[in-house]
Amino acid sequence: FLVQLATMACSQKSEATVILRENGKMREKTLTMDTLNPQVKAVEYAVRGPIVTKAGDIERGLQQGQKHPFTEVIKANIGDSHAMGQKPITFLRQVVALCSFPELLNSPSFPEDAKQRARRILQGCGGQSLGSYSASQGVDCIRQDVAVYIEQRDKGVPADWDNIYLTTGASDGIVSILKMLVSGQGRSRSGVMIPIPQYPLYSAAISELEAVQINYYLDEDNCWALDINELHRAYQAAKEHCHPRVICIINPGNPTGQVQSRKCIEDVLHFAYEENLFVMSDEVYQDNVYSPDLQFHSFKKVLYEMGPEYFNTVELASFHSTSKGYSGECGFRGGYMEVLNLDLEVKAQLVKLLSVRLCPPVSGQAAMDVIVNPPLPHEPSYLQFHKEKSAVLGALAEKAQVTEQTLNTVPGIKCNPVQGAMYAFPRIFIPPRAVEEAKSLGMSPDMMYCLRLLEETGICLVPGSGFGQREGTYHFRMTILPTTEKLKVLLEKLRDFHIKFLKEYASLEEPKR
Amino acid sequence: FLVQLATMACSQKSEATVILRENGKMREKTLTMDTLNPQVKAVEYAVRGPIVTKAGDIERGLQQGQKHPFTEVIKANIGDSHAMGQKPITFLRQVVALCSFPELLNSPSFPEDAKQRARRILQGCGGQSLGSYSASQGVDCIRQDVAVYIEQRDKGVPADWDNIYLTTGASDGIVSILKMLVSGQGRSRSGVMIPIPQYPLYSAAISELEAVQINYYLDEDNCWALDINELHRAYQAAKEHCHPRVICIINPGNPTGQVQSRKCIEDVLHFAYEENLFVMSDEVYQDNVYSPDLQFHSFKKVLYEMGPEYFNTVELASFHSTSKGYSGECGFRGGYMEVLNLDLEVKAQLVKLLSVRLCPPVSGQAAMDVIVNPPLPHEPSYLQFHKEKSAVLGALAEKAQVTEQTLNTVPGIKCNPVQGAMYAFPRIFIPPRAVEEAKSLGMSPDMMYCLRLLEETGICLVPGSGFGQREGTYHFRMTILPTTEKLKVLLEKLRDFHIKFLKEYASLEEPKR
Repeated sequence: FLVQLATMACSQKSEATVILRENGKMREKTLTMDTLNPQVKAVEYAVRGPIVTKAGDIERGLQQGQKHPFTEVIKANIGDSHAMGQKPITFLRQVVALCSFPELLNSPSFPEDAKQRARRILQGCGGQSLGSYSASQGVDCIRQDVAVYIEQRDKGVPADWDNIYLTTGASDGIVSILKMLVSGQGRSRSGVMIPIPQYPLYSAAISELEAVQINYYLDEDNCWALDINELHRAYQAAKEHCHPRVICIINPGNPTGQVQSRKCIEDVLHFAYEENLFVMSDEVYQDNVYSPDLQFHSFKKVLYEMGPEYFNTVELASFHSTSKGYSGECGFRGGYMEVLNLDLEVKAQLVKLLSVRLCPPVSGQAAMDVIVNPPLPHEPSYLQFHKEKSAVLGALAEKAQVTEQTLNTVPGIKCNPVQGAMYAFPRIFIPPRAVEEAKSLGMSPDMMYCLRLLEETGICLVPGSGFGQREGTYHFRMTILPTTEKLKVLLEKLRDFHIKFLKEYASLEEPKR
Repeated sequence: FLVQLATMACSQKSEATVILRENGKMREKTLTMDTLNPQVKAVEYAVRGPIVTKAGDIERGLQQGQKHPFTEVIKANIGDSHAMGQKPITFLRQVVALCSFPELLNSPSFPEDAKQRARRILQGCGGQSLGSYSASQGVDCIRQDVAVYIEQRDKGVPADWDNIYLTTGASDGIVSILKMLVSGQGRSRSGVMIPIPQYPLYSAAISELEAVQINYYLDEDNCWALDINELHRAYQAAKEHCHPRVICIINPGNPTGQVQSRKCIEDVLHFAYEENLFVMSDEVYQDNVYSPDLQFHSFKKVLYEMGPEYFNTVELASFHSTSKGYSGECGFRGGYMEVLNLDLEVKAQLVKLLSVRLCPPVSGQAAMDVIVNPPLPHEPSYLQFHKEKSAVLGALAEKAQVTEQTLNTVPGIKCNPVQGAMYAFPRIFIPPRAVEEAKSLGMSPDMMYCLRLLEETGICLVPGSGFGQREGTYHFRMTILPTTEKLKVLLEKLRDFHIKFLKEYASLEEPKR
């Protein structure tokens, strides 16, 4: 069985790349694994890696009547809310539908506030059509709405819409900013500090851009807090072989689910100020905070509160998205970034770079607009909107708790509180015999664990090795997105599997708790 | 006046990049023009360059009551149909609205065929929601529809949906394929053959990827035909300093508007076969053919007709988009690519690369689906769809002719027939004294020409230098997208300006015709 897994983990065998021509001359394929761009080859992205491909295969097999020890694949590998049954926010979809087919503006079945939003967005579009290219930075009035939203969120800290760029999801903005920051060769090559564990977009972009990845480890024993001493350590070590220029922070954390304290954010900003680092703050989970005693602090607001010497100097880009929060509109690929203290000429270069791809999808921009400009208490859609939003966030908070609590009842699994975001990233004990077996199969032990879990229970998770983890520790990432009912089934199956797994590989050593 | 233009053409002066800290230490900006990624700096994209920025400034000025010798800016710089007044295709927008807000599936005011398309698309989405991530290659059933469309278009040449990838506009697909193909250093660095004039996405992507641009010149005296001898010349010359691996063709041509003959396509494919080149055929204007005696031939169909030795070996990627054709849905960022003979392992690498950006916008995928799967003659929406489609294509054909004919009445302007696509790319005579003046201002002569045209008439075109042209020749690109009425005004103003310009810089030399 495990040999089969190992074979599966290898990539498919290639077809012949050399072809004999009729005239007897050989014709080689132009694009082969040998001639492929090595930077592309180096990219890894576990969230959609081999386990997920395998899960898709099993799903299709089930549909065609293949037998498995389960009747359904439960995908908890990716933060894809609607795919897991979350319903769209009605108001958002009404606005997008009105923008898509403006004849509906005459329909009495759409509320006036949705129509008002749609009219305003269409006014900002060339020919009043969602089908026109927008400016490369996005539709002006949507950028203005984003700025107003940020000012309100940050209790009056000024936001200039000239600093707002709409993006194709947050990923697009993150890659664009990283692209600008990569230069130099050898020891002066740009280094990018990222948390470990991290969301693998970062490592993938760093590979593709041939930048230097600088790992700073989050403190698992302290709820995945960011430790400023660890930042110093990582920075000093990296300075020996590259030029550290950027620090990336994900808050609330992905895959780790922690919400950073105000103090910690201030420490990071002070560090960035001292070491001349560009700060990239990934804040796509800013609406996903579940612990009642914690709150989201934006890096920008903290920077402001540190005084003008900081606020007017530290270069900061922060990112948001339509894909997470309470709307979960991943498919629309909407997002924005706000930049601070960016050099004016560099800003012009950024616009030039973005303009090559013309513009972000305009319907995604419209979706972003609704998120930053939702119905107000006096408007007709307010009550329903508020009800839907609270239902989503309430359910997520409950599932965050159920997940943590249940996982912590399993011997050999230890899970930090899921304070925010959409994921648990528990540490799992893998017995030494299992570790050895995995290594003999050329597989990371948590990959073997997750593959077996999928094969035996239909549960699809992502191994911790896809996000990075301290040497010798093992984890998986699971989303808390399945419906409460399905989540409970998942957690039960997971527990049974884990206990069986421990038994199978039992040794003299006790599971570490 | 021209000094002002020259200043304007320079980039904005940067703010101070060195800041004195309170503690007396200097703090430098991390990201400046000196530390910016040099590959980003090298990128140029004229379609949204300084002239277009200037046009936007003038437009805002007019709204605020500033005086200009005109009352309106006419933008003929970019193929943005809806912004120029073209109305969306009703059926397409109905389907997108139904997908966005599925409650409308119960509304009697939507036709059954639109509902059927929407249901089918939603069935293919996770949780039946446009808000779920699709697979990185796109929604399965839409990829299947694309394959069926290609088979019909190509009169039965087989298309496998496993070779179809949905993209974020065509640009995204083009950049992804180029990214895979770039490798090697120095003399073995990948070379990419592109037509001159070209659409500047190609040169921009080549700069960004540090590939080697290999120019092959289209034959202006022969309606911008592709000359196979010129391909050989360019290839042989490039072999001295790089490794030519790719040939890009744009058919129908952008900015040149020619439609390639079947013979020419066969020659190109034979050449690619012989020289082991990967073929990228940009076919986004496949529905935009206006000359009644010409027709679009896909590279794939021609390859098929050349026999299995070609069809089973030549690596080909072809690109299509929702942005052009008769729908002109640029803002949706929909598109697809079809790959042929791609190595299986390389295909897995392509999927991995695409998966980092998660998926193309799903509403753009839905728009693409409607374009490949329009109403059939027996369906309720057929008549209206057909009427709208014919009206758009008929108007474009008429405007193509008006543009060519009017331009050719102007002394010192010579325009090839606009056989397809959406652009005229006439050659303009610029008197030697004007050329000298431009050079003294550090500006290309056609840039100076277009800037003056904008300042004096409000017409916004793109200088030929942004697309490439033979040394010593000058052109501009204009779209044929303004309404017929506005197009006629544009052409008249352009003629008057040109005659005045010639007089102003009159010399002994006669304008070349």
